Amino acid sequence: MNTDFIYLDHAAATPLDGRVLVAMQPYFSDQFYNPSSPYAPAVLVRRAYDEAKHQLAQNIGAKPDELVMTAGATESINLAFGGIAGHVIVSNIEHHAVLAAAASHSYTIVEADERGFVSSDSIKLAITPQTELISIAIANNELGTVQPIRDIARVIKQERDARLERGDRTPIYLHSDASQGVGQLDINVARLGVDLLTLNAGKIYGPKQVGLLWAHSGVRLTPQIVGGGQERGLRSGTENVAGTVGFAKALTLATDHRKFETSRLVILRDRLQAQLIDAFPVAIISGHSKHRLAGHLHISFPHLDAERIVFALESRSVLVATGSACAANKGTRSHVLTAIGLAPEIADGSLRLTLGHLSTDENIAQAGAIIIEEIAREYARTAR
Amino acid sequence: MNTDFIYLDHAAATPLDGRVLVAMQPYFSDQFYNPSSPYAPAVLVRRAYDEAKHQLAQNIGAKPDELVMTAGATESINLAFGGIAGHVIVSNIEHHAVLAAAASHSYTIVEADERGFVSSDSIKLAITPQTELISIAIANNELGTVQPIRDIARVIKQERDARLERGDRTPIYLHSDASQGVGQLDINVARLGVDLLTLNAGKIYGPKQVGLLWAHSGVRLTPQIVGGGQERGLRSGTENVAGTVGFAKALTLATDHRKFETSRLVILRDRLQAQLIDAFPVAIISGHSKHRLAGHLHISFPHLDAERIVFALESRSVLVATGSACAANKGTRSHVLTAIGLAPEIADGSLRLTLGHLSTDENIAQAGAIIIEEIAREYARTAR
Repeated sequence: MNTDFIYLDHAAATPLDGRVLVAMQPYFSDQFYNPSSPYAPAVLVRRAYDEAKHQLAQNIGAKPDELVMTAGATESINLAFGGIAGHVIVSNIEHHAVLAAAASHSYTIVEADERGFVSSDSIKLAITPQTELISIAIANNELGTVQPIRDIARVIKQERDARLERGDRTPIYLHSDASQGVGQLDINVARLGVDLLTLNAGKIYGPKQVGLLWAHSGVRLTPQIVGGGQERGLRSGTENVAGTVGFAKALTLATDHRKFETSRLVILRDRLQAQLIDAFPVAIISGHSKHRLAGHLHISFPHLDAERIVFALESRSVLVATGSACAANKGTRSHVLTAIGLAPEIADGSLRLTLGHLSTDENIAQAGAIIIEEIAREYARTAR
Repeated sequence: MNTDFIYLDHAAATPLDGRVLVAMQPYFSDQFYNPSSPYAPAVLVRRAYDEAKHQLAQNIGAKPDELVMTAGATESINLAFGGIAGHVIVSNIEHHAVLAAAASHSYTIVEADERGFVSSDSIKLAITPQTELISIAIANNELGTVQPIRDIARVIKQERDARLERGDRTPIYLHSDASQGVGQLDINVARLGVDLLTLNAGKIYGPKQVGLLWAHSGVRLTPQIVGGGQERGLRSGTENVAGTVGFAKALTLATDHRKFETSRLVILRDRLQAQLIDAFPVAIISGHSKHRLAGHLHISFPHLDAERIVFALESRSVLVATGSACAANKGTRSHVLTAIGLAPEIADGSLRLTLGHLSTDENIAQAGAIIIEEIAREYARTAR
């Protein structure tokens, strides 16, 4: 792994775990066979693929044949929305992929509060008799706010039960993109109460361009990519064996180390937060104070220019984000920060610091000191 | 590489070339950054990605910003068809992905001849004023027959010119899936005269789950996967940097060694063909005698059961296919063999032998001898 930098952008991308690469390696050049071929070495490849799906399913408490392997969270989200004819509900802080997928439907956007929290009450109010899908990420990728998915699921179950009672067969599903929550939150689909779940290997030290959509067997999906009929006809194309095996390994590692890693990151994050707030009492922490991802720290330095800070920190070998990486290089203000009502002079001075495997006691303390120096320098410069 | 087997199924899957893996490796754990992140190490990753696309484009004589990176040929084909509102034309021996994509349009299926050859005249006859897309693979994946893409392109140009002349602005495009032709055929888009081209890294010793769609800048595509707006909004999702770098390396190697490798494979294939026909004059070679991929040998042993032969050969460590891998494990007769009019008792005894990097003088000679023994044994058994 690269140790030239202190990496504080784990929410944007994660390095491939060495153990994941080891798991994938046999399927590159040795067991490279097409899993649809009939001879025994290919059947072994098929078995490894099925076993990886089994492992993935087990990690989320699902059945393997309820998984559709995809090329990542964005494709999974598009697949989740693809089969929906009716009304959909999303929040105003959802990822661009969810907002874009919703836009081709009749939709309602519910507002998150100033902490980026989407209440189950707001969802309840937005449900119409035509509502077929609600899509809320398990945790916001910019703020780290963890959503009350279980409560939202209960609201949806009530609506489903009410429809059943009155003989209305319009389905209503809850989809959650859990890409940012894996390794820090419980993502058991039964306990969450969701009907569809998106996961992304690239966010959990697994291979990039690998994701999945889990859909409860009762959910009818519409294939977005048609052809050879792989993935039970829901997503055609030769199966990504190495990627799926790597994903399974990454998810298993994330699940196995979840409790340990979460406690470790909370301590590091809280220490960093205290250090920065101590130095700059004017700084503003966004996101939910209680329901927040362990590794997430969203902090705004009013009247400063976050882009300048990113580059100043980069010159000191500390890598941080100004906002969601997807929108980061487009020079536009984050829709999430606007949605939670951050004033422009606060939003524009926002850093997203996300900790993860590459974070250690030492490098977080060091990063804190460097960030303080550079922020102080910026405040001194702009005060002149 | 696995040398336990003699692999004669290069059309179904290819092992990752060691040089390709070396090219990809830096982007797994070291330069793992999100190419959309703003700091310098991520900008270097973005540059590597752009450079890989540049290299891919150069190999087909196109511009980098005309490429859309995808998760493989199937997705590329779906994207090519996605933006088409009018009538489409495909042949009856196209890949399932093309047939399935065509099925959601008004379409005409033209018939290939008994060699699997799709004449430009048959395309000409099928064009209506509403025709917007013609999709013909550069080479058939089962028979290896190479299609007269240049002639078909000329027919389409004539139609386009005629429409322009009468002020009809209905577009007409030629799409070709060149997945099976790379490394053996000239795939320069200008020389081919196509408007859209699909390529697949997994068929040319590159990474699986990586493909591209090239579209001439005049072609209007409709995104199938929406979200963060990557690939000029045509295919959202975090870019697959390692995969694209590997694809570029694989395509460059394929292009650089095309002439050498093609001559080498033709000699091996022709020798194997002669050896088998010599032993079994009753055997039938399908595909075009002249316009055929160098590594392809489609041979039918009348009245034998190809599936039995596949397993018999597998027990002798020779891996061959009965037909297209996509359909292979579904127990149905190949639609291609039906399309070219092979009688059931001939079609059902068909093997597809495809040579490639793993083929050597020695192992092809050895495979020939083993196939002859096993076919002889089967004929002896069934004659009893």
